[in-house]
Amino acid sequence: MDKILRIDVGAPGGPKATVEALGEYAGLGGRAMTSIVVSKEVPADCHPLGPENKLVIAPGIATGSAAASSGRLSIGCKSPLTGGIKESNAGGQPGMYLARLGYAAIIIEGEHDRNGGFYKVVINESGVTFEDAGDLVGLRNYAMAEKIKEQYGDKVGLISIGTAGEMRMLAASIACTDPEFRPTRHAGRGGVGAVMGSKGIKCIVVDSGGAKMRQPVDAEAFKAGNRKFVEGLRGHAVTGEGLPAYGTNILTNILCEAGGYPTYNFKEGVYKGAEKISGETMAETEKVRGGNPTHGCHRGCVIQCSGVFVDKDGNYVTKQPEYETVWAHGGNCGIDDLDTIAKLDFMDDDIGLDTIEMGVTIGIAMDAGVIPFGDAEGAVKLLEEVGQGTPLGRILGAGAGITAKCFGLERAPVVKNQAMPAYDPRAVKGVGVTYATTTMGADHTAGYAVATNILKVGGDVDPLSSTGQADLSRNLQIATAALDATGFCLFIAFAILDQPETFQAMLDTLNGLNGSNLTADDVVELGKTILRAEREFNKEAGFTNVHDRLPRYFRREKLPPHDVVFDVTDQELDSVFNF
Amino acid sequence: MDKILRIDVGAPGGPKATVEALGEYAGLGGRAMTSIVVSKEVPADCHPLGPENKLVIAPGIATGSAAASSGRLSIGCKSPLTGGIKESNAGGQPGMYLARLGYAAIIIEGEHDRNGGFYKVVINESGVTFEDAGDLVGLRNYAMAEKIKEQYGDKVGLISIGTAGEMRMLAASIACTDPEFRPTRHAGRGGVGAVMGSKGIKCIVVDSGGAKMRQPVDAEAFKAGNRKFVEGLRGHAVTGEGLPAYGTNILTNILCEAGGYPTYNFKEGVYKGAEKISGETMAETEKVRGGNPTHGCHRGCVIQCSGVFVDKDGNYVTKQPEYETVWAHGGNCGIDDLDTIAKLDFMDDDIGLDTIEMGVTIGIAMDAGVIPFGDAEGAVKLLEEVGQGTPLGRILGAGAGITAKCFGLERAPVVKNQAMPAYDPRAVKGVGVTYATTTMGADHTAGYAVATNILKVGGDVDPLSSTGQADLSRNLQIATAALDATGFCLFIAFAILDQPETFQAMLDTLNGLNGSNLTADDVVELGKTILRAEREFNKEAGFTNVHDRLPRYFRREKLPPHDVVFDVTDQELDSVFNF
Repeated sequence: MDKILRIDVGAPGGPKATVEALGEYAGLGGRAMTSIVVSKEVPADCHPLGPENKLVIAPGIATGSAAASSGRLSIGCKSPLTGGIKESNAGGQPGMYLARLGYAAIIIEGEHDRNGGFYKVVINESGVTFEDAGDLVGLRNYAMAEKIKEQYGDKVGLISIGTAGEMRMLAASIACTDPEFRPTRHAGRGGVGAVMGSKGIKCIVVDSGGAKMRQPVDAEAFKAGNRKFVEGLRGHAVTGEGLPAYGTNILTNILCEAGGYPTYNFKEGVYKGAEKISGETMAETEKVRGGNPTHGCHRGCVIQCSGVFVDKDGNYVTKQPEYETVWAHGGNCGIDDLDTIAKLDFMDDDIGLDTIEMGVTIGIAMDAGVIPFGDAEGAVKLLEEVGQGTPLGRILGAGAGITAKCFGLERAPVVKNQAMPAYDPRAVKGVGVTYATTTMGADHTAGYAVATNILKVGGDVDPLSSTGQADLSRNLQIATAALDATGFCLFIAFAILDQPETFQAMLDTLNGLNGSNLTADDVVELGKTILRAEREFNKEAGFTNVHDRLPRYFRREKLPPHDVVFDVTDQELDSVFNF
Repeated sequence: MDKILRIDVGAPGGPKATVEALGEYAGLGGRAMTSIVVSKEVPADCHPLGPENKLVIAPGIATGSAAASSGRLSIGCKSPLTGGIKESNAGGQPGMYLARLGYAAIIIEGEHDRNGGFYKVVINESGVTFEDAGDLVGLRNYAMAEKIKEQYGDKVGLISIGTAGEMRMLAASIACTDPEFRPTRHAGRGGVGAVMGSKGIKCIVVDSGGAKMRQPVDAEAFKAGNRKFVEGLRGHAVTGEGLPAYGTNILTNILCEAGGYPTYNFKEGVYKGAEKISGETMAETEKVRGGNPTHGCHRGCVIQCSGVFVDKDGNYVTKQPEYETVWAHGGNCGIDDLDTIAKLDFMDDDIGLDTIEMGVTIGIAMDAGVIPFGDAEGAVKLLEEVGQGTPLGRILGAGAGITAKCFGLERAPVVKNQAMPAYDPRAVKGVGVTYATTTMGADHTAGYAVATNILKVGGDVDPLSSTGQADLSRNLQIATAALDATGFCLFIAFAILDQPETFQAMLDTLNGLNGSNLTADDVVELGKTILRAEREFNKEAGFTNVHDRLPRYFRREKLPPHDVVFDVTDQELDSVFNF
């Protein structure tokens, strides 16, 4: 990865590609690359859908190599949803192909004429070409992938937006294809798809053709490190057993037991229908129907947390929905039917929408009385409205915060206008601190304190007490920022937090690959550097400590069954970025 | 005015009224009262539609007396549209009646059950009662006023919300009845109607019955001062000739001549259809049809800038639409038909909506392709959707900023999410500075630099140059804040800025009325005190200098015919609040 591909969509006569040396961005990857480029090149006060914003697509520093579970791709910009900096990342194949072609980043910039149609970008060993995407416009992701496959086969990677991104909806995602060329792996959060849409790019075909897997600088060290790393992943209960067998949805029962499963738009902490939509039930259903509960989002993953969900006749419906998706479209909306949830997951992927944002948004619409809680058919209809861009679809496609505003509702579980994920911050206070303070808007992945609060990984901090949560969230946010730069899947964190030798093995793998000498301290410093750049961007975009807060009703309304409020003090919240 | 009426809508068993002494709020009125109460009693980070917000209704310190043109009523809260502090004021009769009953303020607070229906509040000499407003729910303002008139006659004042306020729409206004008991005078800006709706108050009937006009402490001084004050108003070209004859809409031709009339959603600075909708044409039309071009919004006004607009058969349509309304629904949308504009004005008043916000919002919808520019019938249909609360109506009723977000458009002419009024900031730079920096969100009335830039009142500052605009806006913002505390109509500013003896006469009138010794310096100090309190509130609500900016496209896109951009520097903008 020794070059950057810069695409100016506003160049006279049509988009223009330039290949640049890495320059000041040398050594960066993933979130480090996207956040540093955005903070250096994008004016913080620009309009996210205007010409000054840029979309940065960057594989991690291990991506494209044989390192285990290292296929993540970061996508960054100024977020149209939050108004702050955004890094959203996805699995799938395209990141690896980009890395193998040598691209450390694609930077898409310039002014696209809103009425000027869309382009398809084709990147291969010969270079970059732009084609009119008129035949793809209006297509959802699955149909588009079929068309691309007809022309390019299924050995390429596809990065694409559905109709939501075309319509520049604030909940629009960017899809990446999985090993079966299905557009199931999404950079979901923050409306990155709207930015891609605003640049007039419908899809990017990444064809690495004969390009080989990235070769390590020190093959021996790399191989030895990676072996130990794989052992560590396979040996940990979460990454070696729970995730492969049940996927992330194993959390449904766990969070309900903890009383931290937000139900009916964050009104209660236990969902009575949990058993019907739990990971255990889902895995069993997949097995019985001839689906597959154990499947990787990209080749080379040893955790295999995903799966394939099929209908009663064994026909493919969607990839195994994540816990957060099952929660958002399920318990949060009072829907306890796995088939409906799978259908909604498929529709999100197809239309190109963030499943968390959409589930929370539909929950708000239910709270506002648009449809009743538990109305599965109604939820499907609402999502179809989003896909079609009807007026109601335009409201919902703008996300949770705007939907609450359009319906005059206080109860919007958002921070920095981004919807909260599947953990109630009153009963899992560590993740509440992360929601409040992360640069990303409410986001569990930015500092997954659930691990330590609930799963007792990396320590044990009482989820119901405010004590220690700020320190926990800070440490996790720093570690996560660094991890998001590597291209490794976030789920390796379970193993490397608990097993020092696995952490070292990860470092050895990285060092062997890149000929570097990264230490644990370097990792911490990298995380801090990323967070500082992001926070500075947000400050220049107008964010203050006042934005590092949960909505007041989380301090006022008690969450059953523990009858707890969020009581981490403002001073503690403000201490998170004290480094 | 020696008491405050505090209404707790969340009291057990239903709303409860308490009458309090003025205490620390003694001597305050209008915007001084609303902004000081809000800044002291409302947590700046609360949700505007939640239980912690309060709605403060306060007559000015001259309101209810015989002082000329002193009938203004201020309404304040945390704005659901801007997220900052808000004072929105209106003419009409209710302010005078409230003052005559001795109320310096109504403070509406507490938590109303969203599904708990609406109340009618009746205030008279015997006290305050609450009645179920079930028979009024769903009624628009005109029909509601008819019902109230049947029961209470037309000698009471009515403060009410239409269906927009019931639905807690962010563009919802609060209506006050005029001398003919028509709900035509609105506290329009910032969504104050949504806050009233969130408190479950459909209307307030103010029956001052036998309560006399407020008696001056020093009758002689008051009488002498007021006589000179009236002379000054009648003697000035704007307040004595232009406004009575043509109303504010005299500005259509003037702003077009100046190239600062925002046309087609702020794309051009001159409207080719201006002649058909100008104040001159409107006054002539009213005269010919048997309407009335010269009419006061409240009894005791000597300026009489309003009028009565009738249809071809001489039937009442609406009060004479203001310049800003004619612009918003007219030129900004490419609509050059006065009858359509009058109908839209009526609908705004009836549904209870801010005409500026709605006109700009419809302009954005046109820019997004929902209907074409110039589609008069389409605009009427869109506004009807708002009244009915259809999904499209919910988008539009949420205002310009959210409508642009729902349709993925950069071109939203808003500051702090409030729509810009009828003066393009690129060609009238002084008002651009006011839009950017006022605590209120884009608002011409907060510091009407148009007076000095275009009308050459109070000096002459070149509208196309950035020089001197920050100083001009600062001085006007300070003076206006104080003026908004007096209850005098803002339009007296034309006379008191140009004629020192009229300014002194205003002070003499106030001093005679209240037995005070206000000097010019005191007025400046009062203005500064108000602005400081408002700005501190906004800071605590999360606003920084970054929010004191125009959208970037005003710096990028040239406005014809002068081909100018907004080029007042950030440093100059930041100097406005340097006192």
